[in-house]
This record gives sequence, C-alpha cells and structure tokens, in this order.
Amino acid sequence: MPQRAALLAIGDEVLRGEISNTNAAFIAERLFDLGYEISEQIVVSDEPQAIRAALVRLRAEADVIIATGGLGPTEDDRTVDVVAELLATGTHADEPSLEAMKKRFSTHGFEMTPNNLRQVRIPHDGRALPNAAGIAPGFMVRLGGAEAFFLPGVPREMEKMFTDEVVPRLAHRLAETGGPLLATRTWHLYGMGESHIDHRLAGILTGVEGATLHFRTSNPVNHVKLVVRLPDAADARATVEKVDAELRKRIGPGIYGIDGETFPAAVAKALRAQEATLAFAESCTGGLAGEIVTSEAGATAFFRGSVVAYADEVKTGVLGVKPETITDFGAVSEPTAREMAEGAKRVCGSSVAVAITGVAGPAGGAPDKPVGTVCFAICGPGTTRTSTKLFAGGRERVRIAAAYYALDLARRYFDTRKR
Amino acid sequence: MPQRAALLAIGDEVLRGEISNTNAAFIAERLFDLGYEISEQIVVSDEPQAIRAALVRLRAEADVIIATGGLGPTEDDRTVDVVAELLATGTHADEPSLEAMKKRFSTHGFEMTPNNLRQVRIPHDGRALPNAAGIAPGFMVRLGGAEAFFLPGVPREMEKMFTDEVVPRLAHRLAETGGPLLATRTWHLYGMGESHIDHRLAGILTGVEGATLHFRTSNPVNHVKLVVRLPDAADARATVEKVDAELRKRIGPGIYGIDGETFPAAVAKALRAQEATLAFAESCTGGLAGEIVTSEAGATAFFRGSVVAYADEVKTGVLGVKPETITDFGAVSEPTAREMAEGAKRVCGSSVAVAITGVAGPAGGAPDKPVGTVCFAICGPGTTRTSTKLFAGGRERVRIAAAYYALDLARRYFDTRKR
Repeated sequence: MPQRAALLAIGDEVLRGEISNTNAAFIAERLFDLGYEISEQIVVSDEPQAIRAALVRLRAEADVIIATGGLGPTEDDRTVDVVAELLATGTHADEPSLEAMKKRFSTHGFEMTPNNLRQVRIPHDGRALPNAAGIAPGFMVRLGGAEAFFLPGVPREMEKMFTDEVVPRLAHRLAETGGPLLATRTWHLYGMGESHIDHRLAGILTGVEGATLHFRTSNPVNHVKLVVRLPDAADARATVEKVDAELRKRIGPGIYGIDGETFPAAVAKALRAQEATLAFAESCTGGLAGEIVTSEAGATAFFRGSVVAYADEVKTGVLGVKPETITDFGAVSEPTAREMAEGAKRVCGSSVAVAITGVAGPAGGAPDKPVGTVCFAICGPGTTRTSTKLFAGGRERVRIAAAYYALDLARRYFDTRKR
Repeated sequence: MPQRAALLAIGDEVLRGEISNTNAAFIAERLFDLGYEISEQIVVSDEPQAIRAALVRLRAEADVIIATGGLGPTEDDRTVDVVAELLATGTHADEPSLEAMKKRFSTHGFEMTPNNLRQVRIPHDGRALPNAAGIAPGFMVRLGGAEAFFLPGVPREMEKMFTDEVVPRLAHRLAETGGPLLATRTWHLYGMGESHIDHRLAGILTGVEGATLHFRTSNPVNHVKLVVRLPDAADARATVEKVDAELRKRIGPGIYGIDGETFPAAVAKALRAQEATLAFAESCTGGLAGEIVTSEAGATAFFRGSVVAYADEVKTGVLGVKPETITDFGAVSEPTAREMAEGAKRVCGSSVAVAITGVAGPAGGAPDKPVGTVCFAICGPGTTRTSTKLFAGGRERVRIAAAYYALDLARRYFDTRKR
C-alpha cells in the first residue's frame, strides 16, 4: 500500500491570493521523490473551525500530514491551539526554543512581548521541531491514523525545518513500512520544445521496471526527471544509469546539466575548460545576459563585463559600430551584431564575446523585422559567426529567450568550432 | 451572507509539486477583490474519483467553484467526463471551438487527431466559455447549489478566460445577490521594512467603515492594499481617496506608485519629467539594473545603456577609473563608484549616471567590507554623490537590493537635488 501524504497550508494571505503557495510545490516534490503518494493539497483560512475541519478530514485520509503556517506571534496564529483542542490537551512553552529566543532578543537588545511567548508554545503531546532560521518551533504529533508535522509558513524557515527535521523521519518511516527504495535523476535541456523532447524520448521506458518520467518546462529550458522505485537500491541506481545512457544518445548536446547543475554553471564550465573569458554586447536584453551569467558566484574567473548599448550612440561611441552599418542595415541586423560583438571583445579584453540586438516589442516591429526578431554574433579566436532568430511571446519572453540563446552560443562555442 | 468561492486545481503536475499552483493566487486575489469570500483552495490528482469527490464536497460548501486543469487532449484529461457523469448527462463538441480549432490547424498545416476532438467537448448542460488563447473551451455549469466554472490549467489561457468570461459574470452575480460594492487601491512602497510601514500606518483605519488593509512584501518593495466594501459605490470611492490622503501624509516619498504602476515605470516617469537620460555602471549586479529599467517598453526614451564592469580592467579601460583609485581604496569603495558613475555618464552620453560596486557574496567579504556591502555613486548636472549600504541576505537578495537602490537614486535624483 502506498503511503499517502496530504498538504495543508493555513493562512488568509495564501487563501486570498496575496501570496502564492510556493511551499506546497517545495514540499510535494520532495515527498513524491521520497516515495509518498500525494493525496491532496488544501489551503484554508486562519479561522480555527476551518483549520480543525481540514485536520479532521485529512487525518482520516492520509498517513502523513504536512501543515504550514499559523505558528507566528499574532492573534491570527491559531494552529497550536486548534491542535491542542483537537487532542483535548493543553500547551506549553518549548524550553529550547524559549531559550534560543531569549538569547536572540538579548543579542539584538529587543524586548520580549507576551506575543513572543505565544509563538514558542507547542501542544503537550507534540514533539518540538527546532527552527534554525527563525523563532517559532514546529512540532510533530499523532492525529488519529496520521503522523502530522506542523511547520512555519515563512518559506526560508519551513524549507530548513522540512529538510533537516521532516525528511529524515519520513524516509525512515517509509523504510519501516517496507516502501520501495528510490533513485532519481533530472536532466536539464536547452534548445528543444517539450513536444520535440517527448517525441525523441518515446518508448524510452519500455521494459524498464519501476520507472516513471516527468516533464517540466521552465521557459526556455526543460527538465526531464526520472523516478525509479525498486525494492533494491542498487537496482534503482543501475536503472538510472541505463536510462541516462539512452537519454544522452537520443538528446545529445541539448542536455546542459543534471540535478543541481544550472545553466549559468554550464556556461561557466564550458568557458573555464578552455581558459576563455567572456563579454557581452547587449541591446534589447538591457543587461539580462550579464545578469544571468553572474547570478552564481565564481563568474569573476571568466566574465569580463558587458556593454549594454541600448542607444545607437552607445553602439557607435563605446563599441565602435560604424554609423553607416546602422544606417545601411539597421540596429537590428547581423552586420551590426557582428560589429557589436567585436567591439565588446576589444573594449572588455575578453577572448570570446557575444552580441544581442533585437526587437523585444511590443512596439518597434516592422514587416521584415517583426517583434521577436533578434540578431546575434559571436566572435572569438576564429571567425565571427552571426545568426538571426524569431522568438515568440511578449517582451519578457523574447528577452529571456534571447539572453539564453546568447549564453548557449558561448556554452557551445568551442564544441561547434571544432566541427 | 457573503458569497463563498472555492478553488479547485486538477492535475498531477501541480499535486506532485512539479509546477507551482500560481493560478490559485491569480484567481483568489481577483475573487477577493470582487467581494467574494474564499472558503478553500484544493489541489487533486487527475484521477476521476479524486476530482469527483472534490466537486461533491465543494458544491455543498461554496456558492461559486472555480476549477482549473484537466481540459487538454490527452487521456489524463478527465474533467469533462467527470462533470458529465456527475450530472448524469453526456458530452458534445462545442461548435464554435471546433470551428476555431479546424481553422487554426489548417492555417498551420497540422493534421487533427481524435485526441484534438476530445478537447473541444463540453457536458450537455454546460455553457461553453471561449478560449481566446488556446484550443480547449472552458465551460460553466450548475453543480448542486454552486455555479461552477471550469477553465484550462495553462496560465495564459486561464487568465484570459477568467478575465474576459468569468469576472463579468461573477460581478453581475454579486450585484444581483445584493453584495456590497467595492473600491480598492494598492500603494507600492520602496525603502521601508514591513514593520516600519505597519508602525506608520497604525490606527489609520480607526473609524473608517467597511475598510481593510492588506500587506504584501515582494522584496525589496512592499505593497499596501486597501479594500473598501460599502453599500454605495460613491461612498466606497470617497473612502479610498480619504485613506489615500492620510497614507501619503504618513509615508511620504516612499510611495513610488499605485495600482498598475511599476517601479521601472516610476523611474522612467521621474527622469522623463526632467528630460533626463540615464546610464549605469554596474559591477556586482552584472547588468540587473539595466535589465530592470528596460523590462518595460519605452525605455528608449531615456535609457542610454550601461557598462557592466565586472573585471577591474573594464572599470579602468572602458570607464576610465584610475588604477590607483582601485589600488588605494579597493574596487568596492565610494571613490571607485564615483569614477565609475562619471565614466558611464561620459561614455554613454547621458545626463545622469548611477554606479554600483559591491560584494554580492557568498565569497569576497572582508572584515571592513562584509558580504552585502555595496557602494553607489550618482552623478548628473550637479555634484556627484556617493553612499555605502550593507544589504542582508544571500547573493540574489543583495543584487536585487542593490539594483533597486540604484534605480531609486535615479528616481529621486531631481527631488533630492532641490532640497
């Protein structure tokens, strides 16, 4: 029998849509990876009767309940009281959490209010879960047939507590109930649509026992996740490797990384392997390509900088694009992109440079250069190469697509040069 | 009696956390603004019995149900069949949707498959809701005591259909049931923490009838939303204006806009009012300030460009920072920021320029310049001004905080110069 887990988010802010329930995706994905079946996600208000009704229902349906929210210091935070009442018991201050709070407050010279004392309480029958990133402890408690975990609603606090305190207990619990063992891998892909990927992977799991594939699009990249559940852990890992080999054969260089590897990290790896340095000349992206490439630490090792030449005067004045190139071919043209890239390489002193100039929209399109038209150039040790793409979607989507395309040109520059 | 609305999301991808349920926040916020009370949000799997159980429960609890997902072409898309079964009726193809699909397919030269025919079906008792952004129509149907709306799960399609087809019907419905009339305003704030705002606004609604205030933080900006529900629309609007005047008195220039006004739009407005042009010199932000300022169309009117001087050689070579300034004071220093700003103004030919140079982390901190230290300079027609800030949080948070701070310097430059 699969172990069923249900998620409960408590709070008016989520219920009314003032904030998105991102906690649910974080928790659900990890529960699913552990091997739990997710039965339901619910969001209810701060009202005690709503919280109570949800818990009464879920304890009859699920083996595990993960609840978030309602543990704060204010009168709106009712979770502890509702659970205590449901168990016909009282509450007490969790000593370690109280001590940690006192220490924290005295360090910062804050005064404690009675409300602060509220938030370190847990129900008598509960076991406290320490909050390494905040004040209010979580707690776990038996609710009817279900093991229930109550966590803070603040994502930073919840994520730390869930990872450190809940995941090990849930993994142990599943092992005890004889659940299957699990291995997963996620491949990250750039440059292919979902239906194209789907087509290339058709039948890849035929005859592969205990395995499922899951697709996720996070425009403009795609993620393919393999989940293998088998009674034996070594078998599960071997299945992952077998599917990995087949998947790489079918997809090729569209795979830029696996699991925790990000797109900027893949760009960094490819350039550092060649001891290359990088610069951008950006127009319609306004700085986005540089922003992505520096979003992870360590960019100093290969990234020189960018010239964001939004105005034509900056293209000519800083990058040395010839005014007649812009007059003859337009600011959005391969000849302009070429001179922008060569200018960026020269002024930033990099070994490789990529230029982006396009029409992000919504205005500025022309019959021969509709909105979404973006011209690129990449120059390096060899010949400069130019290309033009037409991206779909609104301004934001076009800009993201253009920046990723530019980064991918840099990532694959040394591969494609060899061919 | 308040009208109660419940949200149901159908689909394994959301349930398992592969995608976040952002639809719920979109819908809930608009329902709440219309004047509905949100009773619950639920996410269930694609399984017919799970969908059925959720609908049976919600039709007894809510006056309005908004369901999303499960309307696609695949075998996993079961919503139409479950609803038809629940109503003991059959399904038929919605003619206008079928015609639109045929036209769309013949334009692109695609062939229709039997699966495509599946997705234009609706239950016999339903009224179709056209899908202006996709293929599958939505539908509305009476389920017990509730009016239920079934919409596609793809956000772009759902948002269009909800806005065009559902909102007018729900507003009409509420007016008919004699619900209160509503006026809202949202103020967008920069440069103040939530607790600081809370403190300044304490008691602002004392004696103000039918009004509630809601806070939302979207780091580093905050949003304060006023919702007024009164029997008379003119009274509701007058209350909004009254609170607006008081709120502006209490908050001052920290308010950068209301309702649909964005932060980059506020920057654009302030600069264009002075016929000023803008350039950035960015280091640790990698291009983010330029990216934000160009995220909305129309930046061409005032934004010249940026020099992203990530490497010190770009600071000296392109921006003309003196090597001894970096040697003597460091790359992260006010003297370096000053020369960066002045260099960006000169090479980009702008009337105002802002420089950002800091330690975004996680590495690179020093005792006198810990991670989060960012130096700024702004130069324009008058004297160059420099400042240093220490931002909290990880790399991403520090970079966002630094970019917003730089944009705010530009936004307030002409105000503060006058003082």
